[in-house]
Amino acid sequence: MADFIDELASAVRRTGNAVCVGLDPRAQNLPGGLLKACDQSASAIAAAFSKFCCNVVDVVAPLVPVAKVQAAFFEELGPPGMAAMARVIDYAQSHGLLVIVDAKRNDIGSTAEAYARGYLGRSSSAWHADALTVSPYLGDDSLSPFVNVAQERGAGVFVLVKTSNPGGGLLQDLVCDGEPMYRHVARHVERLAAATVGECGYGAVGAVVGATYPAQLVELRKLMPHTWFLVPGYGNQGGTAADVAAAFDNRGFGAIINNSRGIIFAHENPMFSRRFAANNWQGAVEAATREMIEALAPIGPRG
Amino acid sequence: MADFIDELASAVRRTGNAVCVGLDPRAQNLPGGLLKACDQSASAIAAAFSKFCCNVVDVVAPLVPVAKVQAAFFEELGPPGMAAMARVIDYAQSHGLLVIVDAKRNDIGSTAEAYARGYLGRSSSAWHADALTVSPYLGDDSLSPFVNVAQERGAGVFVLVKTSNPGGGLLQDLVCDGEPMYRHVARHVERLAAATVGECGYGAVGAVVGATYPAQLVELRKLMPHTWFLVPGYGNQGGTAADVAAAFDNRGFGAIINNSRGIIFAHENPMFSRRFAANNWQGAVEAATREMIEALAPIGPRG
Repeated sequence: MADFIDELASAVRRTGNAVCVGLDPRAQNLPGGLLKACDQSASAIAAAFSKFCCNVVDVVAPLVPVAKVQAAFFEELGPPGMAAMARVIDYAQSHGLLVIVDAKRNDIGSTAEAYARGYLGRSSSAWHADALTVSPYLGDDSLSPFVNVAQERGAGVFVLVKTSNPGGGLLQDLVCDGEPMYRHVARHVERLAAATVGECGYGAVGAVVGATYPAQLVELRKLMPHTWFLVPGYGNQGGTAADVAAAFDNRGFGAIINNSRGIIFAHENPMFSRRFAANNWQGAVEAATREMIEALAPIGPRG
Repeated sequence: MADFIDELASAVRRTGNAVCVGLDPRAQNLPGGLLKACDQSASAIAAAFSKFCCNVVDVVAPLVPVAKVQAAFFEELGPPGMAAMARVIDYAQSHGLLVIVDAKRNDIGSTAEAYARGYLGRSSSAWHADALTVSPYLGDDSLSPFVNVAQERGAGVFVLVKTSNPGGGLLQDLVCDGEPMYRHVARHVERLAAATVGECGYGAVGAVVGATYPAQLVELRKLMPHTWFLVPGYGNQGGTAADVAAAFDNRGFGAIINNSRGIIFAHENPMFSRRFAANNWQGAVEAATREMIEALAPIGPRG
């Protein structure tokens, strides 16, 4: 079995697009019928999340290379939610999707290792993820345990570098020794990526770089030639296809573009919902996915 | 019921010390008999962790004000581990301890809110914690959802500022606009603390400041007069009572000093283990706890 980053490159080539579907279930946005008003217990919501996400997977697995599961929404529900997250991950993988868990974990030494062992590795971890997002504030010795476990298990890691939220600049844009902080993080991540390069030319260590800062995408793509980007912020957060173009290399590889609400809750968007019966929310998911694939086609993978 | 920070100040006054016992269970360090060699399944380890931590609580609850649960070690085990963590938290609280979950969560907007709702609040969250550690790389709009939920539920938040690990300096010590990055974080945390001050004079938002950088403790205590410190790095990581003295205000309040392995695995330390029979590992836990209380007495709470 190839390592995560080569599997990701293959999956992007096979599907012909770099769309990452974000599985961020929220009780108040679920299509009608999935969650009964009379039972809003954590277990009932967890069961509804699991069913909903698996139904989304049924639609998107033949179309896109990868899904990203947002741990927080499952975790809010407690242990039943955490069990539902494992079921969703297994289901997505058994339908051919690679799965990134967006959990932004971070700690030091053997504690970071415990997180990495819990999430990374299809057959060897509790949650079976192909990759995990991690947060860098604790420094280099907080990232290396994640990288080491990922390498051992053929998995991947995406480190937060320049995030899509308005407040991200509070620390990330502080100018330190003549450069914004996110560039210092970027250089470190690129070193980790260069040390873990697969056949596709990218490393097992990737970076999270938001779609909402296109100028930084241009700059970071140049600075980080071995680093695959996970790009949030497309769609609902305001990022467009033009904004994310710079995330790709000249073959159209090197980035995946995440869309969560814009795809999974497409039934709430009149642009899609009016074309489908109320009980056909999956039709809206498919239409939104195809529209995003179309929008990214001019900048996506070639050859 | 008072809010977390006032309850913490009361508990420190009542017990006469500022010791935080870190519940960081590791399978390879458990005392003999708790985990059978023939069953090392995740469920068996989770059950052993739960029993071990509850047995530690039996010893330390009458002695110290607060415990810190390390999420990673439970999380590594998957959903059974997450359920065990909830049991340990409930048990510790029902025995009179305040409980901080050390999970270093971080995200933005409604996602950060989901983590906060999952952890914070004794009666209103899945894990029932009194406080949660969070990581600041994503900026101010990543911290405010945690602070808001904490305020609503009478809970607390501890933000990573200056961590105890050797690699923490990679980002935290970068000099930005004439000051190291951790001071920028510190100023922001102090603003949040000053806006959430309780009767004890400290805010619902605290800071994690490592024992291994005593000069920074002095500096940050001055810079952050409304911020209660959670100080890791005492004992096994090298911090001494002299090192942490500066974390306290002149009444001996304003800080709790965490010790994990040094207390819970005291049975592995010859200094304690030779005084107790092999099956009396709880005797070693009690001796180690009392020794730390004694060591901190000259700098602890007065009046």
